[in-house]
Amino acid sequence: MIRVGVLGATGYAGIETVRLLCGHPEVEITRVVSKSFVGKKISEVYPSLTNVLDLVCCDLDPEDIAAACDVVFTALPHGASKTVIPDLYERGLTVIDLSGDFRYNSVEVYEKWYGEPHSAPELLKQSVYGLCELHRDQIKGTRLIGNPGCYTTCSILPLYPLLKKGIVDTKNIIIDAKSGVSGAGRSTNLDISFCECTENMKAYKIATHRHTSEIEQELSEAAGTDVMVSFTPHLIPLKRGILSTCYANLLGEHTYEEILALYREFYKGEHFIRIMDGILPETNHVAGSNFVDIGFRIDERLNRIVVVSAIDNLIKGAAGQAVQNLNIRFGLPETTGLSNAGYYL
Amino acid sequence: MIRVGVLGATGYAGIETVRLLCGHPEVEITRVVSKSFVGKKISEVYPSLTNVLDLVCCDLDPEDIAAACDVVFTALPHGASKTVIPDLYERGLTVIDLSGDFRYNSVEVYEKWYGEPHSAPELLKQSVYGLCELHRDQIKGTRLIGNPGCYTTCSILPLYPLLKKGIVDTKNIIIDAKSGVSGAGRSTNLDISFCECTENMKAYKIATHRHTSEIEQELSEAAGTDVMVSFTPHLIPLKRGILSTCYANLLGEHTYEEILALYREFYKGEHFIRIMDGILPETNHVAGSNFVDIGFRIDERLNRIVVVSAIDNLIKGAAGQAVQNLNIRFGLPETTGLSNAGYYL
Amino acid sequence: MIRVGVLGATGYAGIETVRLLCGHPEVEITRVVSKSFVGKKISEVYPSLTNVLDLVCCDLDPEDIAAACDVVFTALPHGASKTVIPDLYERGLTVIDLSGDFRYNSVEVYEKWYGEPHSAPELLKQSVYGLCELHRDQIKGTRLIGNPGCYTTCSILPLYPLLKKGIVDTKNIIIDAKSGVSGAGRSTNLDISFCECTENMKAYKIATHRHTSEIEQELSEAAGTDVMVSFTPHLIPLKRGILSTCYANLLGEHTYEEILALYREFYKGEHFIRIMDGILPETNHVAGSNFVDIGFRIDERLNRIVVVSAIDNLIKGAAGQAVQNLNIRFGLPETTGLSNAGYYL
Amino acid sequence: MIRVGVLGATGYAGIETVRLLCGHPEVEITRVVSKSFVGKKISEVYPSLTNVLDLVCCDLDPEDIAAACDVVFTALPHGASKTVIPDLYERGLTVIDLSGDFRYNSVEVYEKWYGEPHSAPELLKQSVYGLCELHRDQIKGTRLIGNPGCYTTCSILPLYPLLKKGIVDTKNIIIDAKSGVSGAGRSTNLDISFCECTENMKAYKIATHRHTSEIEQELSEAAGTDVMVSFTPHLIPLKRGILSTCYANLLGEHTYEEILALYREFYKGEHFIRIMDGILPETNHVAGSNFVDIGFRIDERLNRIVVVSAIDNLIKGAAGQAVQNLNIRFGLPETTGLSNAGYYL
Repeated sequence: MIRVGVLGATGYAGIETVRLLCGHPEVEITRVVSKSFVGKKISEVYPSLTNVLDLVCCDLDPEDIAAACDVVFTALPHGASKTVIPDLYERGLTVIDLSGDFRYNSVEVYEKWYGEPHSAPELLKQSVYGLCELHRDQIKGTRLIGNPGCYTTCSILPLYPLLKKGIVDTKNIIIDAKSGVSGAGRSTNLDISFCECTENMKAYKIATHRHTSEIEQELSEAAGTDVMVSFTPHLIPLKRGILSTCYANLLGEHTYEEILALYREFYKGEHFIRIMDGILPETNHVAGSNFVDIGFRIDERLNRIVVVSAIDNLIKGAAGQAVQNLNIRFGLPETTGLSNAGYYL
Repeated sequence: MIRVGVLGATGYAGIETVRLLCGHPEVEITRVVSKSFVGKKISEVYPSLTNVLDLVCCDLDPEDIAAACDVVFTALPHGASKTVIPDLYERGLTVIDLSGDFRYNSVEVYEKWYGEPHSAPELLKQSVYGLCELHRDQIKGTRLIGNPGCYTTCSILPLYPLLKKGIVDTKNIIIDAKSGVSGAGRSTNLDISFCECTENMKAYKIATHRHTSEIEQELSEAAGTDVMVSFTPHLIPLKRGILSTCYANLLGEHTYEEILALYREFYKGEHFIRIMDGILPETNHVAGSNFVDIGFRIDERLNRIVVVSAIDNLIKGAAGQAVQNLNIRFGLPETTGLSNAGYYL
Repeated sequence: MIRVGVLGATGYAGIETVRLLCGHPEVEITRVVSKSFVGKKISEVYPSLTNVLDLVCCDLDPEDIAAACDVVFTALPHGASKTVIPDLYERGLTVIDLSGDFRYNSVEVYEKWYGEPHSAPELLKQSVYGLCELHRDQIKGTRLIGNPGCYTTCSILPLYPLLKKGIVDTKNIIIDAKSGVSGAGRSTNLDISFCECTENMKAYKIATHRHTSEIEQELSEAAGTDVMVSFTPHLIPLKRGILSTCYANLLGEHTYEEILALYREFYKGEHFIRIMDGILPETNHVAGSNFVDIGFRIDERLNRIVVVSAIDNLIKGAAGQAVQNLNIRFGLPETTGLSNAGYYL
Repeated sequence: MIRVGVLGATGYAGIETVRLLCGHPEVEITRVVSKSFVGKKISEVYPSLTNVLDLVCCDLDPEDIAAACDVVFTALPHGASKTVIPDLYERGLTVIDLSGDFRYNSVEVYEKWYGEPHSAPELLKQSVYGLCELHRDQIKGTRLIGNPGCYTTCSILPLYPLLKKGIVDTKNIIIDAKSGVSGAGRSTNLDISFCECTENMKAYKIATHRHTSEIEQELSEAAGTDVMVSFTPHLIPLKRGILSTCYANLLGEHTYEEILALYREFYKGEHFIRIMDGILPETNHVAGSNFVDIGFRIDERLNRIVVVSAIDNLIKGAAGQAVQNLNIRFGLPETTGLSNAGYYL
């Protein structure tokens, strides 16, 4: 059994990681760390876990963690990760970090978008961007995985093959993304209170959302040239789910069938990526699962492709991809603990 | 492996049964029967199942079912079950029926509440009411299980111990139950369309809902005398979940602690029944799981107990209890395929 | 024009009062008081008011209020009202208070349920309980109106006629009430954040909710004897609306028609009380309006009546009733500013 | 008083028209026509109208309509309008049509997007496209108004000034629009049932939605050249509201302040158009009102403008704009019956 600790276990990404790991046959959760709930059972904080996991939350003690765990998932608030992780990493642990701190190839990009110096630039060189389907080989060989953001997973995967194959213009790429409210985390902000959210929708952080930089990093890699995109996040009144609607201008003429074949070839053998033919992705097809659904249409009048992609932001967009990274890193089948269908209902 | 068929697989109770069985390690789904979608993959009807179960829906052919299955789950519209089941039963199959047709000890009660003759009264004698925690021993020995209704499971379990122990008056029992919309099934009725349901709530079928009779059958058994209850169902704008608020007048004085102990003793060893102390049940603690959460308060001014119970109507209220019945019938640990925590989010 | 000030204008009850008053033809809003937003336009806090009311929020200055207003609506947090109101009242203003402080005939009842001494007991004698349909005459003659709570309005009105006419037992009255989330006010509490509320429901404050005492005060008056009730509030995932399901045992035999006639007679001429025949109340029939819908069924097996009542908690349960009280107090037609239908959608 | 009839009064656009007209001081509703509910009171179909409008629904009798009405609002299913309207028009009535039949300058455009011949092409020449803020003068002089679609109103108004002033490229205009479910009308389609919609979102009719043609007609007029756009509608789990996120490449350099001034100048004096500075539109700022909120950001990295616009699809997107057209046509202040703020809650 792989011994696992979850840091920041009582936030939404943390508790979803815990929930998934409870059903993982090769994992034993040995530590749940939560500063706010030290001494309380995790099932008191989340009664849904009663009779499933009644472990007591503890404070962060790196020595104890190192003794009790082989792997830690860090689901800490932004900034906290980068002070905690170097210590854990040096103690020989594998670290799967759900924050933004270790997702970048370049310190400069991080510092530009996060507006502060990176506190462990040397570790950034060791870390691998944990978008499983694109960086599987590097993930196998690292002990520090920067688990991707929710919006980014849902935006990179549908666009990557088009850029890699060079069939779309790298200019004029637009990603209009819609997220459920759990993406904001467990928070008491007024603007995610029920009455302010339900029956409401809005765009936010237009042209300034940090996930833009992750998306551009990966798409630039795909294109072999610098790519800049418009990325607009929206808040939508549902709990789980991200839908990205991506627009790109086609270079040359391409039929629907040709592009469908391109996607299927590119993602051949990828269990979690489902290329839809005819139907378009809906978030309730993926909610509760680790799947990424991708569907598209060609607007022949404009020679433009519109690709739609859907994920569960808490699973493929956070906890599920983190577990998938664990599976890759430890040589397990990638679907271990992740084989279930979405809820639909 | 137990070979399983699901009849009525594309309704909500049916598809939830399919979804749960996909994660059951001792089961192989060999047939999904759906009149409306013969020849279509079940994953075309529910794209959430893509890459998980791509079985093609077939029409109902009892001979084929008997050859391909050991057990069938029948999730058919009311009335359909009782014409199909006798045939399947005679062919030696184990039948777990999610309709109301085989839930009764008495033909008279059925006919009174359903307003029509029962077409297989002799089979009704063979059948066992599949409320697992109360009828486990009989379930083990039958091939025909009448799986309980959603409201009934959520209402009987919190009241049964109180009546069995004789600490509440059998008069003046009131059950005020609230259900999510999936309880209405997959339907195109206007009154469950999004705009008519969301931001709305209502009571319906006051004093006439059929589940009343199931509740009274079991509570009368508990009390050893005829019990009649007020049962009021309400439609609430959420997908999954039932919450029952039950009122009963206490006989004699009883402390909170005493009744807490009574509940814990009565349901000792029952994995799926969680007696809450202090906190009260909420539907998102159980949604996605087979758990029943029970909590209560004593109103000392009135010497009245108020018990609240929550389940996922599609799981413990339908598909999950059906799988639990399968486990009991086939001698498997009851949690097989049902060990997951609720979603919470 | 009646010059009006709203204190606590940026809470949910306050802003709904402001919104309704904007459409009131005999009223001019001269002051909006909000400690948290002094100096900001109210339309910056609630952009829905842009181009409708762009008044700047001010701090509480009783002298200024007295000079600028004829009436004040106080929608302040619990406890704040009773320190502010005596001063305003002494300056000759008419005060319509939306808090619990001036709803009681008896200081003792207040102090028992609120757990603290009342700071203006002499004023409590001047104040009138502002349940318009029951206390219209007294409201006309007072300058201090204790506007009723949301749950109470929805619970007293359906039960009052039954008790007044003596056709139900005063024991065993049970009120199972369900409220939308706006009843919790504009708050950053975690338990009303979107992800904790949506797809969830729960009971809370069983047997201890303060509104119980208001309900008992009025129902005792109706019955001419002390009445105690079980009152259970529930939190339901919608914004606006309360539904009360009330249970009472009938004394003697009474037909549906007889009781329908009783209700219609009792509330004859009441524009805002709609006695439903056949159909049952739903919250989206009243949301956005000042109506109270009442419908019922008789359970002949148990000789019990089940009455269902629905209101918009922010309107008839708070701001609308406050405006109705203003109309009564100032001799205007009661529907002035309140004549609109509910939204339905 | 203007005597008004509403045809198709029991659909969602129809009933919202009725609801708004009930509060219009210069209007008397004399006829509500609904084939499905002839002989029933409209308040039986929509109990929210009880005590507000208890008119009986009648069948369509043009002679009777002509005698009883000065104006008719036609909120009929697609196709029905164009057979009914010529008769009513010839009888001298003013017709405000909420369908797509009379929104076009060109029969060819209509026939291309609707895939069928137009049955009254000569009337199309008489009709005026009823986007109030753009065609006010023509609306004053016509008796046949083609009331715009919901998506189109929300998409044309934010883009029109940019194209009129020539500061954006006419290529690469992308409109990503999100709509609440009421836009689908009162329907029993499975895909708008509660359980299929809630907690779900999806794109639909990519590159083929008919509203594209309305948008292009108006934007081409603004630009003085043919404009083609990508228009993608999405279904979002809320009742009321459309949010359009529009992307266009700027020609030359333009500051935020400059474009803000441009918008304010262009829509100067327009009560219903609110240009937001700093904050971005949210649908709950406009829900329940006739307002259009417009806000924007400039992405300097890409020299691209992202404009967001929000309306209530049932009001400014249908019934409210229809009433505004009535006001224009009859020389009333445009805000008559439409002066209320949005609900916010």
